Amino acid sequence: MHCSACGATYPLATRAWRCEQCGGVLEISDAPAFDPARIARHDASMWRYRALLPLPAHAAPLSLGEGWTPLAPVEYANRAIFCKLDFLNPTGSFKDRGASALVSAVKAFGYARVVEDSSGNAAAALAGYAAYAGLHATIFTPAHASPMKLQQIQAYGAELQKIEGVRENAAAAAQNAATQDGAYYGSHYYNPFFLAGLQTTAWEIWEQLGRAPEAVVMPAGHGTNLVGMYRGFRALHDAGLISKLPRMFAAQASIIAPLALAYARGDSEPARVAPGFTVAEGIANSQPLHGREVLDIVRATDGAALAASEDEIRAARLKLARRGLFVEPTSATALAVLEKILATQTLEGTLVVSLTGSGLKTPL
Amino acid sequence: MHCSACGATYPLATRAWRCEQCGGVLEISDAPAFDPARIARHDASMWRYRALLPLPAHAAPLSLGEGWTPLAPVEYANRAIFCKLDFLNPTGSFKDRGASALVSAVKAFGYARVVEDSSGNAAAALAGYAAYAGLHATIFTPAHASPMKLQQIQAYGAELQKIEGVRENAAAAAQNAATQDGAYYGSHYYNPFFLAGLQTTAWEIWEQLGRAPEAVVMPAGHGTNLVGMYRGFRALHDAGLISKLPRMFAAQASIIAPLALAYARGDSEPARVAPGFTVAEGIANSQPLHGREVLDIVRATDGAALAASEDEIRAARLKLARRGLFVEPTSATALAVLEKILATQTLEGTLVVSLTGSGLKTPL
Repeated sequence: MHCSACGATYPLATRAWRCEQCGGVLEISDAPAFDPARIARHDASMWRYRALLPLPAHAAPLSLGEGWTPLAPVEYANRAIFCKLDFLNPTGSFKDRGASALVSAVKAFGYARVVEDSSGNAAAALAGYAAYAGLHATIFTPAHASPMKLQQIQAYGAELQKIEGVRENAAAAAQNAATQDGAYYGSHYYNPFFLAGLQTTAWEIWEQLGRAPEAVVMPAGHGTNLVGMYRGFRALHDAGLISKLPRMFAAQASIIAPLALAYARGDSEPARVAPGFTVAEGIANSQPLHGREVLDIVRATDGAALAASEDEIRAARLKLARRGLFVEPTSATALAVLEKILATQTLEGTLVVSLTGSGLKTPL
Repeated sequence: MHCSACGATYPLATRAWRCEQCGGVLEISDAPAFDPARIARHDASMWRYRALLPLPAHAAPLSLGEGWTPLAPVEYANRAIFCKLDFLNPTGSFKDRGASALVSAVKAFGYARVVEDSSGNAAAALAGYAAYAGLHATIFTPAHASPMKLQQIQAYGAELQKIEGVRENAAAAAQNAATQDGAYYGSHYYNPFFLAGLQTTAWEIWEQLGRAPEAVVMPAGHGTNLVGMYRGFRALHDAGLISKLPRMFAAQASIIAPLALAYARGDSEPARVAPGFTVAEGIANSQPLHGREVLDIVRATDGAALAASEDEIRAARLKLARRGLFVEPTSATALAVLEKILATQTLEGTLVVSLTGSGLKTPL
């Protein structure tokens, strides 16, 4: 493990959740090169890629069958687009990929307690996998999160700490707890094992299509889904399995759009925006941790970061439901942004939209 | 197609939803024999068994990736039991298997409108697949069904008719509409294509385990899941692929337990019980359509039909959540009944519990 900013090194099992020297994001130092011969093709979960994930060698998969989700063709705007149905993961969101990888590592390291902060989906994922693994989980969550998300977290047996105000307050409370009381910070945006698990989405799309798509559109808050997927495609590219990286598009809610604003302005850092509330609660992040990397990626791949209004997000949610896909508003942001892209340019080739969270947690 | 009672025959595309002579249940006359060479093993959905399903030859799969759900090992009562996570289907329940098969057939027949009655999951499944297929769906549902289930049905764009009183009233309204106004009755308990789709669960369990389990426990209302799974295992048995059928256990709620009462009394017909309400709303059937067949099956396989109290069902729901599996009370009935079985006998060998519906539709 090393700091991505200053290069300071840490043992793989460190409880440090960011660089203790400079506050930078930690990265796993040695990741296996992608090798298709090492895919366990009989395994219909993300653990088909166990040999390709940078987890401790003695980590046993703690798996509820997450990943290997359907890639469904849907007729939209007179063409077929492919929807990656990651809302069909065991706790209802793509976060299960990260949580399964993280909890498998934490269990192997021998820690007994994890803490996390989340507006809902990541918390549910961590709580669910902690329950499966027999770990104690404490979740710091904004008090305004969807009631069904809070119920789900509590059903898994996690200790729930509701924090008033914007979601940044919950993050501060979790980080304080992780620093003070000896728990492992199972952060869905800081933790590198969590991020490593998210690469599997790209590998699955590549296997399912038999090639890389031309473009991928997905909601972006802290940016882990986008960064994880990009790294997955890059690993395929490095291995010579795809000749071109997909164009990556980040979708945000206009109310809190630090990435879309920075992209429009040509800035390399996320814009300063006020914390706030949006119907796309899963991406209500005013200070995206991986923001700089997201901006680099969307520019390098000829993608973009764009934002949609609350009304556009709600309308997109219904459009998806009218095609049999009931997702949460956060996920619908991707379709709302896709409409904007198609209004100004022709996207050639195969298009994938990442549908990240179940509609069943959020009332219409 | 023929009547299972009097033998009267019907074309495969008939709109008759039961025998017009005697009221009996219709059956598909010619089903392919099970042949493992005909499994499309690259297909991670129930449609890997397309060649083994008795659907019209020209029916194209209308698929959102339903089926091929995880079979997760869970530690319970000091042993590993396998949970079939059918709540991870696209609309949140095992009913998607039936709905996908039914809608694929209906679309091939050229009908444009379907009607259905359901307490929630079957309605959501039919509404979701109708939306995907571009069919008009009208759903008759008990007014007391879970609000999230009703929201989901409406999000899919189905026309919702709330019918006051017990769920039998909704059934009568749907059957009247199907008879009077030319719609296809997409019944999750009468329709033989729906039932055919449910066989795939057994085939998947067999493939996933590499053998048949010794016992399967599942919730039973009308009994379609149990009858479908039994027929699936019987097809494997007929093909010489398994030497013994699993013991089949039907789980009911004590408040409405026509099958458990009949089983205890040694009767071959379901007991007469009053309609009513239970937290296990998915199996609140006072007159189970396939009741006689369920009783035959549980006796022939050395299984049983047993019931659990409301408190036992609620407790079982939490026990599953504490292991990372958030399901609806109906599904938890299976675990509650499994506890009763294990209290009186040692179940040797591999045990499978069918977890039929998502917890996200029903508050704690």
